[in-house]
Amino acid sequence: MTGNKKAVILSSGGLDSSTAMAVAGEKGFGLYSLSFDYGQRHRIELEAAKNIADRMDVSRHLVVKVNMRDIGGSALTDDIDVPRKKSLMGEDPEIPATYVPARNTIFLSFALAWAEVLGSEDIFIGVNAVDYSGYPDCRPDYIKAFENMANLATKAGVEKKTKITVHAPLIHMTKADIIQLGVKLGVDYSLTHSCYDPTPVGISCGECDSCMLRKKGFREAGIQDPVVYIR
Amino acid sequence: MTGNKKAVILSSGGLDSSTAMAVAGEKGFGLYSLSFDYGQRHRIELEAAKNIADRMDVSRHLVVKVNMRDIGGSALTDDIDVPRKKSLMGEDPEIPATYVPARNTIFLSFALAWAEVLGSEDIFIGVNAVDYSGYPDCRPDYIKAFENMANLATKAGVEKKTKITVHAPLIHMTKADIIQLGVKLGVDYSLTHSCYDPTPVGISCGECDSCMLRKKGFREAGIQDPVVYIR
Repeated sequence: MTGNKKAVILSSGGLDSSTAMAVAGEKGFGLYSLSFDYGQRHRIELEAAKNIADRMDVSRHLVVKVNMRDIGGSALTDDIDVPRKKSLMGEDPEIPATYVPARNTIFLSFALAWAEVLGSEDIFIGVNAVDYSGYPDCRPDYIKAFENMANLATKAGVEKKTKITVHAPLIHMTKADIIQLGVKLGVDYSLTHSCYDPTPVGISCGECDSCMLRKKGFREAGIQDPVVYIR
Repeated sequence: MTGNKKAVILSSGGLDSSTAMAVAGEKGFGLYSLSFDYGQRHRIELEAAKNIADRMDVSRHLVVKVNMRDIGGSALTDDIDVPRKKSLMGEDPEIPATYVPARNTIFLSFALAWAEVLGSEDIFIGVNAVDYSGYPDCRPDYIKAFENMANLATKAGVEKKTKITVHAPLIHMTKADIIQLGVKLGVDYSLTHSCYDPTPVGISCGECDSCMLRKKGFREAGIQDPVVYIR
């Protein structure tokens, strides 16, 4: 057990990041969850992230405001239609319209800044290379390259007092594996939110990429999804 | 000449980034300047960045709002005193209180996002390893590691359609060299702002690390600094 060690966990309020947080908790880290108000259309995820932070007994939950709308380029922040009932992973080589340019890089950069301030050497991110659905910044090579850069970027790294590790505990797991692990660790998936396009707010559409992946995962895990879907 | 190629230039409104922008212009890039409203105490730098963008005829100047005060840890965003009349580079091995955790990593991440949206492969940053005054994220190893990560992070990189280059044209130059280069390229240094602690607003203190480095640079370059100092 790591006792007093702190971990910064990127939390989107979704299934994966909540499971990654439970993994960090299981390892004994003090939990510092970090979410972003980045002009996303599905703002309910911020509420979900807060509820999960409360339930998981985090030491601090921080929401950083960053304006990614000005940069543009994604269906998640722009007025572009979220794709429905199409590309599940592998079926469509195209990177989806819901990809936000450099999002994980931006999020990990803030996690790195906060880790440095907290004196933490451990960052958790719930990315997944199996179900990553075409997002380049969810692959192991990318995570490794970020970690390498991070250790050259910081005061603590340069002074060789710390060594930053970017943990991606779900990276090689299927969605079904993740759900089974989370249930074992006590994650309350009724609090998590996955839908890219919640209409009306709080209810999942059941048809966007993210809903399709989630529904498939619960089905394969043989577990009932507590979230309400329109379809 | 690169004709229609676009470059994203990180612009702080200071001497170095303005010179880096002039280098990008000289190479024929279309200029896209990027500044951050990050809760800095020396907010006049945003005004300087805008004036420089106007003068340098950039295609677009974007200011992204990010709240780094919440993360804390620096005299530039917190209510910690800016150090005066102490550590010039090399004299003090300690990393200065004005260091903002992971700042260049955060800024470069946004530059990467914007480059991807613009279809640009070139990012310019005015970092300097000679006068870097203890900032870890101003060294060549760090810039190379960021570039490597960037090429694994993006849709365009993964599709091998583009190769991101992070240009740090001033990295091995002294402040005096930078000033001489900038004057040759027509940079109007009267528009640039360097002081960490402008009081009253618009006048440079002459005593913070940044003023000391700037004054020394102009002195060594044998050029008159057009900025007004209190001391």
